This record gives sequence, C-alpha cells and structure tokens, in this order.
Amino acid sequence: MTAVVHRYVAALNASDLEGIVALYADDATVEDPVGSAVQNGIEAIRAFYANSLKLALKVELTGEVRAVANEAAFAFTVSFEYQGRKTLIAPIDHFRFNDAGKVVSMRAFFGQQNIHAA
Amino acid sequence: MTAVVHRYVAALNASDLEGIVALYADDATVEDPVGSAVQNGIEAIRAFYANSLKLALKVELTGEVRAVANEAAFAFTVSFEYQGRKTLIAPIDHFRFNDAGKVVSMRAFFGQQNIHAA
Repeated sequence: MTAVVHRYVAALNASDLEGIVALYADDATVEDPVGSAVQNGIEAIRAFYANSLKLALKVELTGEVRAVANEAAFAFTVSFEYQGRKTLIAPIDHFRFNDAGKVVSMRAFFGQQNIHAA
Repeated sequence: MTAVVHRYVAALNASDLEGIVALYADDATVEDPVGSAVQNGIEAIRAFYANSLKLALKVELTGEVRAVANEAAFAFTVSFEYQGRKTLIAPIDHFRFNDAGKVVSMRAFFGQQNIHAA
C-alpha cells in the first residue's frame, strides 16, 4: 500500500494520467474533497484526474504513509499556479484497497483553511 | 471541528480521561488502530482510554487539522516510555462528527512501520 501511495505521488508529479488511473479498481470511487460529488467508476475517475492535471501539480508527501489492514492515510501538499497566483493545498488522503492491491475508495480531506497562498 | 481536535490533544497530554470522553457522542465508535476490535459506545470508549492513559502520553500535532463537511483528519505523534524503552507512534486519526459537534466515529491509522524507537 505504501508503494502504491508513492506511485500515486510520482504519477501526479509526472502528469501521468494513465499511471494514476492504473492504481484504481474499475468500480472505485473518488470523493475529492470530502463532501463533494463522488466520482463513480474508472471512467469518471479518469475524467476527474484529466481535469485536475490541466494544471502542473507539484505534490510532496509530508510525513510517513500510514498503512494498516487494507487502508492507508497520508498527508501531503499540492502546489500549483493559476492565473499568476501560487497556491498550496495541504490534504490528507484516505485510500481503501481491494485484495488485488487496487484502490477502491479515495477520499481527500481538506477544507478552506488548508488552502494557502504560496 | 478543529477546536475539538485541539481539545482532544490537550486532554491526552493532561491524562484527562473525562475531558476525552466528553468529546464523544454516547453511541460513538472507536477503532484504534484500524483493523482492531471496534469500541462501541461511551462506556467501552472510556475503558479504552483509561487503559491508554496508564502510560503518560506526549501528543503533538504534525501539521494542520484537515476539517471538511462533518469530518476531520489530522496527523500527530504519540511518545511514551514503557519498561525503559521510549517509543514514538505517528498516526493519522479520522473523526466523524454529529450535528451536535460530538465525535461519532474515530479511526486511527497506523501500522508497524509507524511505530519507532525514540
């Protein structure tokens, strides 16, 4: 699970859409941020990340990956520039895995107070 | 929710059992660590923390609290000494809140790789 998290971060930094999608099960769900509409299934997830990758993202883990049972949680930062403004978001993501090691559920925890001018 | 997390950390540091229990709803659940037996209801939760507080714990947030919708996630460290050995654990906790602002679900994410000799 820790290796999958590291692959996820690397794929985000490389704008590698198919590298990200490959980590997910076909019937996975993504709720990013928590409280927003849930993306259901791999095609919705691909479209969600394709939109996210329109901006070049710099992603860095902040601290160790917490992996236990069939779940993992990890804190990180995402930095990007939009219309000349640099922004840093500091989420905690939660992954749930199936027996094949694919992510079946991703939920991203961040609120307004975790979005910073950088 | 962020204030509740700070009260939780302060109560752990103060070994304030009733201060911790007061943050939870009567029908709350605690799964600490994820994958272990779930503590169901406030009496089971009180017994769980009473046991945890047999050791003096030093708890420190590592990074900002992520609070969104009715949930919060936060990374922290817990340090303690047991039989002369200093140990540091680095969990991420997930709280879910009810409309009254009480914690109804706590899940603690940490695995063997998050337990360190300190």
